[in-house]
Amino acid sequence: MSLDKMIEKIAALQNPTVAGLDPKLDYIPQYIRYQAYAKYGQTLEGAAEAILQYNKGLIDALCGIVPAVKPQAAYYEMYGWQGVRTLCETIRYAREKGMYVILDGKRNDIGATMESYAAAWLGLTQIEGKLESAFGADALTVNGYLGSDGINPLLKVCSEGDKGIFVLVKTSNPSSGELQDRALATGETIYRAMGASCEEWGKSLPGKYGYSGVGAVVGATYPAQLGELREAMPYTFFLVPGYGAQGGGAKDVAPGFDRNGLGAIVNASRSILCAWKKTNAAPEDFAKAAAAEAVRMRDDIMSEVGAIRLPE
Amino acid sequence: MSLDKMIEKIAALQNPTVAGLDPKLDYIPQYIRYQAYAKYGQTLEGAAEAILQYNKGLIDALCGIVPAVKPQAAYYEMYGWQGVRTLCETIRYAREKGMYVILDGKRNDIGATMESYAAAWLGLTQIEGKLESAFGADALTVNGYLGSDGINPLLKVCSEGDKGIFVLVKTSNPSSGELQDRALATGETIYRAMGASCEEWGKSLPGKYGYSGVGAVVGATYPAQLGELREAMPYTFFLVPGYGAQGGGAKDVAPGFDRNGLGAIVNASRSILCAWKKTNAAPEDFAKAAAAEAVRMRDDIMSEVGAIRLPE
Repeated sequence: MSLDKMIEKIAALQNPTVAGLDPKLDYIPQYIRYQAYAKYGQTLEGAAEAILQYNKGLIDALCGIVPAVKPQAAYYEMYGWQGVRTLCETIRYAREKGMYVILDGKRNDIGATMESYAAAWLGLTQIEGKLESAFGADALTVNGYLGSDGINPLLKVCSEGDKGIFVLVKTSNPSSGELQDRALATGETIYRAMGASCEEWGKSLPGKYGYSGVGAVVGATYPAQLGELREAMPYTFFLVPGYGAQGGGAKDVAPGFDRNGLGAIVNASRSILCAWKKTNAAPEDFAKAAAAEAVRMRDDIMSEVGAIRLPE
Repeated sequence: MSLDKMIEKIAALQNPTVAGLDPKLDYIPQYIRYQAYAKYGQTLEGAAEAILQYNKGLIDALCGIVPAVKPQAAYYEMYGWQGVRTLCETIRYAREKGMYVILDGKRNDIGATMESYAAAWLGLTQIEGKLESAFGADALTVNGYLGSDGINPLLKVCSEGDKGIFVLVKTSNPSSGELQDRALATGETIYRAMGASCEEWGKSLPGKYGYSGVGAVVGATYPAQLGELREAMPYTFFLVPGYGAQGGGAKDVAPGFDRNGLGAIVNASRSILCAWKKTNAAPEDFAKAAAAEAVRMRDDIMSEVGAIRLPE
């Protein structure tokens, strides 16, 4: 019913980061791609198989270092249902290896439709009374533009199944301010209003460590807002994109953490996935290079955070 | 590069409605479900097969009456990748039957990730230089909370492939006002600001009939705002949910239309999908009952709209 399981994994590994699994074919060593094409052709199925093998290699190398992975749905949907099958198998494999899985789908809808998304990604699907797990992630990113009707169905599933959500509050992209930074008549910004809603929604999903099951997405590229929101949203854990390739550094993410070293999990995707290319490693060493980059990122961020301890 | 293809289909059938394909197992006649379970078991695959057969029956019955279908992604994702395969096959089948397909996925993200969603749902996916169609819908619903970075990648794909998008502006649900109705410091509401962005984004995708390739989702349950937005957004076609089961009637949707009877396409899902239950029809007549309800809805709305004509 909260993000406690994620928080415990972060503390156990002393690593407040998550590896974004946003695989592009370009990132995948040629030998993995060509093995897959030999089996399934240069097709959606062949591409999906290459991504699955690449992801498994990454997960094997990262699972002892990084507490969580965050597959981004778009990079799987672009390979059709075959890509979505790879997403499903990636989620299962990462969980088998003990990793916490945040599905980055930014889903949003209302009522029965949101219930269906909740069943799809976090909960169970009922088939004539039988319960089946469709994707079975641990947490889901969501977009709150539709208001409480779009969030309440998720809270129910989170509370039944020990799952969590992350609501978009202040995103990391250059144009995020077009809407999110606009001032309301009350003087507060839209992102502050969305943040206040997160604090409110979280009340029904309290956690053991002071953070609710309703997290927020707050970009590393806006450190001032990250600090402002950390103060304004004391019960809301932050998922922080924008470190690394998008330009954020350890000092930029530091304002997202509390005095226990909790409060934020920082995502990096490209810098980990492409580490083997950047370091001119042999293609066969892609996973080793990813792990080395994950360690570097952990040490970089922990140099600002100090230590992570679970409050009593 | 616009919504012209949809507009032409609306005019040809003199029917400004879209059938929402939001299939729940409850809606599907038992004989279809049990045939599927006999083949694949009471599994995600069995449920997905039942939905596909049900959808095909509906599409066969509706394709001569209704210009478009709008499958809602959540109702397929809840049956795992097998459900997403059914979504893919439903899109293909509807397009083969000449229907315009609006994928209701409310996708949202930025940059390369949004490019991947655009490739997935509207465009083509590149695999080592070969181009493959992943889902191949005609239009996609999207959420604009992230600003232009989340919309621009779609505009490019729409312009290359004669596709369109519908951006959430004022949604039909009770809590839509929590954020969308809030007043900005400038005095305008958030939904008006989002509407103004749609008009701006649409400039790069002009259409032959006065409407751009960037449409907007505006609910039938708020007729005053629908009329206000019709006036404020003259180049933006509206996708109007909320008719029927959600409470909106023909008089409620009327303010969405212009003097040519264009400007809006009204969605109904449950009332069409469950028509056979409501009318106590034989289960074998589920598609016939859906078609009869689609005709009733068309006539109801056209009694307000008058006639639809394409401007020269």
